[in-house]
Amino acid sequence: MSEIVASYLLHDEKGNFEKKAEGIALGLTVGSWTNLPQLEQEQLRKHKGRVVDITPLEDCDRVNNYLEQTTKQAIVKIGYPLSNYTNDLPAILVTVFGKLSLDGKVKLLDLEFSQEALAAFPGPRFGIEGIREKLKVYDRPLVMSIFKGVIGRDMDYLTEQLRAQALGGVDLVKDDEILFDNELTPFEKRITEGKKVLDEVYKEMGHRTLYAVNLTGRTFDLKEKARKAAELGADALLFNVFAYGLDVLQALREDDDVNLPIMAHPAVSGALTPSEFHGFSNSLLLGKLLRLVGADFSLFPSPYGSVAMPLEDTAGITYEVTRPLHTYKQTFPVPSAGIHPGMVPQLISDFGVDSIINAGGGVHGHPDGAVGGGKAFRAAVDATLAGQPLEDTNDEALQKALELWGAVKVKG
Amino acid sequence: MSEIVASYLLHDEKGNFEKKAEGIALGLTVGSWTNLPQLEQEQLRKHKGRVVDITPLEDCDRVNNYLEQTTKQAIVKIGYPLSNYTNDLPAILVTVFGKLSLDGKVKLLDLEFSQEALAAFPGPRFGIEGIREKLKVYDRPLVMSIFKGVIGRDMDYLTEQLRAQALGGVDLVKDDEILFDNELTPFEKRITEGKKVLDEVYKEMGHRTLYAVNLTGRTFDLKEKARKAAELGADALLFNVFAYGLDVLQALREDDDVNLPIMAHPAVSGALTPSEFHGFSNSLLLGKLLRLVGADFSLFPSPYGSVAMPLEDTAGITYEVTRPLHTYKQTFPVPSAGIHPGMVPQLISDFGVDSIINAGGGVHGHPDGAVGGGKAFRAAVDATLAGQPLEDTNDEALQKALELWGAVKVKG
Ligand SMILES: [Mg+2]
Ligand SMILES: [Mg+2]
Repeated sequence: MSEIVASYLLHDEKGNFEKKAEGIALGLTVGSWTNLPQLEQEQLRKHKGRVVDITPLEDCDRVNNYLEQTTKQAIVKIGYPLSNYTNDLPAILVTVFGKLSLDGKVKLLDLEFSQEALAAFPGPRFGIEGIREKLKVYDRPLVMSIFKGVIGRDMDYLTEQLRAQALGGVDLVKDDEILFDNELTPFEKRITEGKKVLDEVYKEMGHRTLYAVNLTGRTFDLKEKARKAAELGADALLFNVFAYGLDVLQALREDDDVNLPIMAHPAVSGALTPSEFHGFSNSLLLGKLLRLVGADFSLFPSPYGSVAMPLEDTAGITYEVTRPLHTYKQTFPVPSAGIHPGMVPQLISDFGVDSIINAGGGVHGHPDGAVGGGKAFRAAVDATLAGQPLEDTNDEALQKALELWGAVKVKG
Repeated sequence: MSEIVASYLLHDEKGNFEKKAEGIALGLTVGSWTNLPQLEQEQLRKHKGRVVDITPLEDCDRVNNYLEQTTKQAIVKIGYPLSNYTNDLPAILVTVFGKLSLDGKVKLLDLEFSQEALAAFPGPRFGIEGIREKLKVYDRPLVMSIFKGVIGRDMDYLTEQLRAQALGGVDLVKDDEILFDNELTPFEKRITEGKKVLDEVYKEMGHRTLYAVNLTGRTFDLKEKARKAAELGADALLFNVFAYGLDVLQALREDDDVNLPIMAHPAVSGALTPSEFHGFSNSLLLGKLLRLVGADFSLFPSPYGSVAMPLEDTAGITYEVTRPLHTYKQTFPVPSAGIHPGMVPQLISDFGVDSIINAGGGVHGHPDGAVGGGKAFRAAVDATLAGQPLEDTNDEALQKALELWGAVKVKG
């Protein structure tokens, strides 16, 4: 029987997890079972949820003190038959974590989809492979930078910043996620003017930089806006998926008239993931689910900045977006925030060659500006892949960066 | 200057909330300030965020023990100028709680919208007043019941359940939120067959019951599906808004071809609200924001069932959906889950006459079935409004309910 198996972390003072699990498996599917006549059981059997596994965990003083009572923990797995819901994420989430999300301390750790369930989801259109193909860069982590302080600024300011970033040799530049449609730097103009700048840089130095423009506005306008972006020659879309919905990203991915790489920004996801007791695991939300719906890039806080995510979580996301799964392409993991060139060896050690090094302050704050910042990152990547300590390179931009920010000793 | 003021609960071990607040106000708007030339400051002034207030709170042993360090708390209010974002909730949420949601322990408690900001949001199309008008019931809480155990069942089963509920005198019946489009009970058929049954009941006993059908499927199909529902004569839509997005509900509300009351179900919202440290307050998410985007009904767990929400939160939701705000109509507060007839006096005491008493098991589990359950609830409402103790009534259905579930002594 085809199903989706959900793994939950449960905290419960009573700790009767068998009863709790059985209650979930029935309550979220056929409602009741043992009191049903034989005939009805036969009819409903293919709709009945099942308890797949219950693994009790050690309870923990820290949690007991916080909750002011002894609290048992377990990981419980429940299987939900595909025959109960339509093959879309809203229906799946409402089934496996709708009412249940409100039912005490329950965190959704994972969803295991049968092959039939996976077949409803497209995965990335381009993926790591397709993005590399666009850039003709196959053998190193990509470098990305972010516009900074662009609210209230005009097109000249924006294009100058874009040019400086591209001249430094970064592979991608993304809009600030808080830049929306506005009179000074409208969406369509950002695309067309941005394209001009990046074409000029390409002619000057043979370096190709892709620009991800922030797709914003009302939900039902997004498809048309994304199609328009494609028509105007946009390179990629930045999308604040958690302010909309995973299903919206999937619809953009599936639209052949959009046909652009989609960069999923984690904005607002911090409302859903960091609690120990509630919400979603990062590996599921920013990892597996973003990949299923078709994000080509998943951005998440690196473990190293002031806005940080635990290394265990960033590793979980990276695993989920790159491991073999169905026929899906891989999603680029993009650790972000608090990144400077001295961290590159650590980032490559953590996230591998198939990742993107993404920096804002670490590019723009370079003593030689964004051009110097981009150069420093590129030099740091080359040195690391060549097995050379950053301090030993003679790249001027990199040395200036190391003077300012230092070199991080690789751990782990 | 027109703005939206966000209130955050911050937990921070350093507790330097002035610095933190200033960092938010600049970091999420113009990026930097003091180092900008005078001329640029002039240009950017209308885009600069401001620290509105910082209120330190007592720190708390329970929290300190849990976090394993002394942790300071404060409520911080930041004003974000309207000139920075478009007037839609995705843009607003990304601005005020995008990156910030990932930045340590920060919970979004409230958003105060200037009148100009409110003007972008429609509020409910019908509201309490409009729903009462449809039902011609003006002076008592409404009674609602929920289909039970309908997955895998056919139209006959469904319509029989609907008829029994309506015959008991409930004012509204809602689909189970986990009932999606399916071959046995397809969306359109539920509407047309449901309508037939309810019209029959109306002819028999002059009692009008409204049926809220679950609007499900892919996001970009919802408008068309909702319009079709309206065409087919649906009474109302049930909508799992948190599996989609608040902006999607708003779009349905704004569509004149839909023109149906919208019942917002809290499914999945438990991933966003229960943490002490992260996510959204219930009064904001299930209260103010649902009202702004136009929900006519907001369902939430009552404080009394096994799936429970703290009374403080349910009161906060109720306040936000009913208090005078802009030109908005009021949203019906619908405390749900674990409700039986013996709780009616407590519910009316907590939620007032302008609320809906919503029950599943408390209707269907009645010794005389759903007909008896509905009658018991209606009798309990009448007795309570007449100031009569439930035990003193001579309504047979109510007495049977009290025997089974007991009468709850009113507290508070
Ligand atoms: Mg940013
Ligand atoms: Mg239900």
